[in-house]
This record gives sequence, structure tokens and C-alpha cells, in this order.
Amino acid sequence: MAHIALKDESLPGIVGLLNHNPATAKPLCELAEVLLVDENSLSKGEREIIAASVSYWNDCHFCHNSHGAAAAAHAGEGVDFLDKIKLGFPKGEISQKLRSLLNIAQKVQQGGKKVTKEDIAEAKAQGASGSEIHDTVLIAAAFCMYNRYVDGLATWAPLENEAYLPMGKRLAEQGYLMEAVPA
Amino acid sequence: MAHIALKDESLPGIVGLLNHNPATAKPLCELAEVLLVDENSLSKGEREIIAASVSYWNDCHFCHNSHGAAAAAHAGEGVDFLDKIKLGFPKGEISQKLRSLLNIAQKVQQGGKKVTKEDIAEAKAQGASGSEIHDTVLIAAAFCMYNRYVDGLATWAPLENEAYLPMGKRLAEQGYLMEAVPA
Repeated sequence: MAHIALKDESLPGIVGLLNHNPATAKPLCELAEVLLVDENSLSKGEREIIAASVSYWNDCHFCHNSHGAAAAAHAGEGVDFLDKIKLGFPKGEISQKLRSLLNIAQKVQQGGKKVTKEDIAEAKAQGASGSEIHDTVLIAAAFCMYNRYVDGLATWAPLENEAYLPMGKRLAEQGYLMEAVPA
Repeated sequence: MAHIALKDESLPGIVGLLNHNPATAKPLCELAEVLLVDENSLSKGEREIIAASVSYWNDCHFCHNSHGAAAAAHAGEGVDFLDKIKLGFPKGEISQKLRSLLNIAQKVQQGGKKVTKEDIAEAKAQGASGSEIHDTVLIAAAFCMYNRYVDGLATWAPLENEAYLPMGKRLAEQGYLMEAVPA
């Protein structure tokens, strides 16, 4: 049970919190839409991989699995994709550019000041633009918020990875604005 | 110099980032407005103290000083108020309820799962409502984002505490929506 009484206890993770508090749901979902869905030189799938990776490093099961499932949906992959994200794609399934951006995201997860000039230089050497570095930092920072919101209030989350596949498909197809509409 | 080239390098901290990227500035400022300004049973000053405290724990000089200065403006206090926030008001200048909420905020800063049932029970025993606990968790989580955004991109910030007093006064009087308008 969550730390506070929610309007609808049946809704998992951030879904229950967004439903509980529409006033904060609106900017939270609009931010996710801008970062993860709107036009960007990073693909939707790449951005979901960053979001799912940060959520994994923050040990947020709900956000890791839901955004990992969205990344899987964008990649046309199944539930095994979640394990690839956890392992950091050791078999080279991602570009060196995305790898350098994931390194920046991991530093941001640890703390803003952990990002070094060398981390930035490496991303630029791999072809990342200033805009892509900006968006990577803000996606990582934003998931340090979403993850803490979800776990700081002790919301419940389905355990099985498979349970997140329909949610990931919905997020990949419909985006985040509908999530702000109370159930 | 920031890690990426900003449209206006003269603007400090998050001000430069909001000016640089209006698409993300809009939901970021709307979230701050809902959390820190809109009608709430926690006073604006109490919410700014939570924001400034989290920013101090995250070692974000710009956010700690700007929101500390906003808290000082709400309290009718001067620059010494920043030191009281850093020290956690050891002389009992704040209510036990706010103290219990600051404890929850500090746990959220460390990680969402650090918040215990005992932390929540103590806040409820001190009179905190479910809504106030919700808002405390989300304010703390949100500043884990804003702080990482500001420091993850290595924005510059005035060193002297006194430099933040006009900004704090402006935030206390005008709120956050105007911050989203490009300079």
C-alpha cells in the first residue's frame, strides 16, 4: 500500500499518482511528452532507453519496466530487451553516440556535478549535438524526479516484466499526454 | 562556461537553460508554479524552505541560494536565512510538522525507497495531511531534477549569497511562470 491514501489504489506506479493529483499531472506529463515524444534528432526509442536506464540505476522497478517496454516497442523487440537495457547493451547493439550519452545520463543520475568535460567531449566526438546533450541531461534529471516520486510514496508495481508490455506499447503509440487525464 | 553553447551565456543557472530551450521551459516552470506558488495548506515560505534544503543537500549552489532567497523574502528575513536553512533551523524556528516533512524530503533526496513508514507516521503525528506529504515528496523529487539540470550542464552561478536576494524577491512576488518567457 502506498504511503498516502490514493483516489484509486488499483492504479500502479506513477499512473495512480497522476490520477490522484491532476494539477501536478499536467506539467509532469507535458514534460515527458516534450522529452520523449516530440520531434528530436534522438529517436523515441533512444530516448526511452535513456529513461529506462536511469530508472534502473535508481532502482525504480515501475519506471524501468514501463519505459523499457516502451523502448522495446519502438525497437520491435520483446521482453528480453529489458535485460539488454539493464546490462547496457554489452554486445554493441547501440551506437557509440548513444553509449556516450548513456554515460552522461549515468553521471547525472549520480549527481549533476559528476558530469565532466571529458564526458561531454566524448559525446561530441561521437557526433552528439549540443541539443542532444541538453536533452540527455534533462531526461536523466527528470527520471531522477519521476523515480523518486513513484518510490518516495511507495506506490505498488507489477512484479513480472511481461506485465509491462501492453503499457509500453500504449506509451510508444500514444505518448504521455493522455496519462494526465484522470481515470 | 556551460557544457553546451547557450543562446545567452550571461544568464545564470536555470535561467539560462529556460531561455535556451522554451519547449522544456514551459512544463518545468508550470510544475514549479503548481508546487511552490498555487494554493496549498503548506505556505509558500514552507515550500521554498523544502526546495532550498533539497538543493543544499544536492550541493546545487544556484538553486539553494535562489530558493533560499525566495524563502527569506516570504519570511521577511535577510541573507542570514540561507544559513538557517543550511543548518536545518537548529534553534527551533520552524514547526515540528515542517521538520518532519523536511526529514521526508531528505530521504527522497537520498532515494525514493529511503522513505520509511516511520517517517510518514511521524509526519502524520505532527499533523501533516496526505496531500502535504504528497507535495513534499514531489517538491523534493522535482528539485532532484532541477538541481541535476543546472549542474549537469555546468551553468554558471553568482557566488555571493547577497546576489540572490533580488531574484528571491522576484520569485516570491511573481512566481515561476514568467521564468519560461525567453529573455
